[in-house]
Amino acid sequence: MLPVHLQPESHVPLYVQLRDQLRALVHAGDLRPGDRIPASRELAVALGVHRTTVANAYAELESEGLIQGHVGRGTFIRANGNGLKITPPAPPVLDGAQGIRWELLFADERGEEVLSRLTASEPEDALSFVMARPAQEFFPIEELQTCINAVLRREAVDVLNLGPSDGYVPLKEAILELLHKEGIAAKDENLLITDGCQQSLDLISKAFVRAGDSVILENPAYPGSVAIFNGARARCLGVPVRTHAEPGTSLGMDIEALEATLAANRVKLIVVTPDFQNPTGMSLPLTSRRKLLELAARHQVPVVEDHIYGRLHEREERVPSLKQLDRSNLVIHIDSFAKVAFPGLRVGWIVAPAAAIERLRVVKQNTDLHTDQLAQGCLAEFLRRGWFTKHVAKMRRVYAQRLAALDEALRKHMPAGTRWTKPDGGMCLWLELPPGFDASELLIHAKERGVLFAPGRYFYVQNPLPNTLRLAYAGLNEKEIARGVATLAELLRVEMKKRERGVRRAERSRVALV
Amino acid sequence: MLPVHLQPESHVPLYVQLRDQLRALVHAGDLRPGDRIPASRELAVALGVHRTTVANAYAELESEGLIQGHVGRGTFIRANGNGLKITPPAPPVLDGAQGIRWELLFADERGEEVLSRLTASEPEDALSFVMARPAQEFFPIEELQTCINAVLRREAVDVLNLGPSDGYVPLKEAILELLHKEGIAAKDENLLITDGCQQSLDLISKAFVRAGDSVILENPAYPGSVAIFNGARARCLGVPVRTHAEPGTSLGMDIEALEATLAANRVKLIVVTPDFQNPTGMSLPLTSRRKLLELAARHQVPVVEDHIYGRLHEREERVPSLKQLDRSNLVIHIDSFAKVAFPGLRVGWIVAPAAAIERLRVVKQNTDLHTDQLAQGCLAEFLRRGWFTKHVAKMRRVYAQRLAALDEALRKHMPAGTRWTKPDGGMCLWLELPPGFDASELLIHAKERGVLFAPGRYFYVQNPLPNTLRLAYAGLNEKEIARGVATLAELLRVEMKKRERGVRRAERSRVALV
Repeated sequence: MLPVHLQPESHVPLYVQLRDQLRALVHAGDLRPGDRIPASRELAVALGVHRTTVANAYAELESEGLIQGHVGRGTFIRANGNGLKITPPAPPVLDGAQGIRWELLFADERGEEVLSRLTASEPEDALSFVMARPAQEFFPIEELQTCINAVLRREAVDVLNLGPSDGYVPLKEAILELLHKEGIAAKDENLLITDGCQQSLDLISKAFVRAGDSVILENPAYPGSVAIFNGARARCLGVPVRTHAEPGTSLGMDIEALEATLAANRVKLIVVTPDFQNPTGMSLPLTSRRKLLELAARHQVPVVEDHIYGRLHEREERVPSLKQLDRSNLVIHIDSFAKVAFPGLRVGWIVAPAAAIERLRVVKQNTDLHTDQLAQGCLAEFLRRGWFTKHVAKMRRVYAQRLAALDEALRKHMPAGTRWTKPDGGMCLWLELPPGFDASELLIHAKERGVLFAPGRYFYVQNPLPNTLRLAYAGLNEKEIARGVATLAELLRVEMKKRERGVRRAERSRVALV
Repeated sequence: MLPVHLQPESHVPLYVQLRDQLRALVHAGDLRPGDRIPASRELAVALGVHRTTVANAYAELESEGLIQGHVGRGTFIRANGNGLKITPPAPPVLDGAQGIRWELLFADERGEEVLSRLTASEPEDALSFVMARPAQEFFPIEELQTCINAVLRREAVDVLNLGPSDGYVPLKEAILELLHKEGIAAKDENLLITDGCQQSLDLISKAFVRAGDSVILENPAYPGSVAIFNGARARCLGVPVRTHAEPGTSLGMDIEALEATLAANRVKLIVVTPDFQNPTGMSLPLTSRRKLLELAARHQVPVVEDHIYGRLHEREERVPSLKQLDRSNLVIHIDSFAKVAFPGLRVGWIVAPAAAIERLRVVKQNTDLHTDQLAQGCLAEFLRRGWFTKHVAKMRRVYAQRLAALDEALRKHMPAGTRWTKPDGGMCLWLELPPGFDASELLIHAKERGVLFAPGRYFYVQNPLPNTLRLAYAGLNEKEIARGVATLAELLRVEMKKRERGVRRAERSRVALV
């Protein structure tokens, strides 16, 4: 196979990377006139990218005169190709699939979200720590069915009709009641129903962020959040998340670094996940929360609090949310049903001061009119019957057991030189391999053994640490967790031994190619 | 009440208009120190705007020192106010609801969508021609319930789990089959499921449009489309839609004007509704469709075909869609279930060349991960059981009868000097009052009689004709249609008589204030 090495985390589109590397191989003489190159489907599978990526790269090289396809035989390096444009590129063909050069029309160089590509190539029976998703074996399906039937019996016409952009009234009422119980005194004008936290972030970005604006994110951060603000052409400034205690510092977002970033930049938004942060699992201590709010108020910067994991606290007591501590009305609090139950029902919400909600409502309306009402109606009923609270309590116990099993397995199997975070809840744990090891390389071997995880580099806003990785454990049971960790530890030991034996790094790195 | 006149169709935010007009009243001496101004809630009701709009205007005027609130007494023009800033504005208060000046942080001056404001103020029992929505008395609720139960019995875990961004597989398969039957040979890679046409337009805008890009829209157009491209800071170029035959021209989008616009501008997208266009009800003849595609191919501009009303054709034969005629693979075809049944279930789709779909899929993923899967699963089942096709056939008959009733009522009641379009399907008809009459004024009187419609000016990209209005008839039965039209005609006759009697225009315009 071709010695190509694509960097999914780069801002350069994959097809451009591929095109340039193939061109370089021709220039270097590694590929010569008459050489056959793999079919696009075949190369796509080998590289773990979408076929369109390869097809786009080939199309560009073909128009440059570097390669040529022959029906039924394959694609070859052209005789006169060798890097010199002898024939001018053909004019755009208007018939057939290549009619428009779509890639020239795109608004930006947006890359595919990497985690979903990892998941797309997952074998059916893989033991996957990749996605932070709830345990499907506990989906309260019967309860949901009861709710749907009640809703359709009672209010089918309302649910099936066009609805208000700010949300279906019965769901808004049920969520306001939930919020009140949880210590957030929101009113109807403070609440907007959305399609989930991803859309909430998108609406917030649309409402507040212009190209060139600076947004503070955690580093590492949730990639879906980075993708949104990159898509809006914002400057993403990462503030480090401390995953291990050091003298004089506290865990979670580094508040001193936040202060310095706010002082040095005119910042539009601070986006933070105070509870069980994705990907690290870290939580922000109370003093840091207070200090963060104080800094935000001083600089007049709204804070987006991602509360999506907030209810999955292992212990009884909770640190108050930023929204609860917010005396200056600057917190935009986003939340969703996706991590507790029903990620397939796309329903979330935003709690914020009325002026912010009113603008977000208009943006929501212009974006997709309103959120699906069948899902809203069902979830309202699910909340009203008390089943949500009951289900959350149950899932907290389940996830606490899984987290304990994960920590135990790591302590049992992982070699010295590794370390990991100690979350108090949520769905993710952050593992550091010994310095110099690359989690992406470990993943290649792990994949062969049917174990998958997300390399840490995909989560960094800047300064990626290649020796980190995320283990999303909530969807795996205790046995699977133990088996998965044992496999990873075994593979890591092999790699560590190889290194001890002084296998040359260059060679190992070559192995990582395709 | 205050002589304030807000223009909802202006790009200036309503609160800015209100603030400036109030300030002008103080400057002109119409409002004097010590005068009490209405409570924000009261003024909001009178103006038909959201309370936040008034609150925002008052907050700004208060910070300018022009007005002052006294707890329990009301808001007053300040003694030293009279337009002169004597005291400097107070520093931002960090406690309480005014902590952050949200209105200074918004990314743009996006106005509220006007139609929804019209609807929000609808009395419960109003006879409303405002929204283009399906007849709720025909919602196939029992069939839907059967589908939901089948889906939850068979595939609950799949539906409730996170799903693929391009759509739930069974729904994609069912829609591909529907498309094949309708003459569109799309493959899986050509199809993306979305939350409906509004979201499809938003995704297309995100994927293709940068600030400053030019987009061609119909004039008049669907306001939700205008809102999206304005939100993306595109230049919206309106191409006239011909609603009445003139020698040497054909109906629908003016293809000569399109050609001229394409020649004079570098255009990024052409957005067109070839069938039963919203708001005019016009359809594009076959020759115009061919010519449009030819122009688009020559200029290498993708065409967004809004097919949302396409299935609601009154007669048996149909003009082929742009997608069917597309030989150059430049059509992005958007469609939805919302106009046929179930607008409350937010599910639509995009059919386009694979390269465009792949990019739109990534944008969709970054926007909201994927569309609600319970709704997707139900609609897949609804399609598979043949109920969709059956329901469409039924609704075509219902809407054809309603359209006939509307045309008949207009012929019976409307005075000479009015004219209206003759749609062959869809949900909307476009009425022109005699030149010089303003549909917004007619609406004020009609509202008092419990009849509502959408003034035409809200639909124009540019050069609004105030004497136009849209009648969305699909949600009203024949009796209601007849009664509504009779009322409108009666009111129009009164207005025409007033004019004949030479009532001064200035005076009538004064009546229209607040």
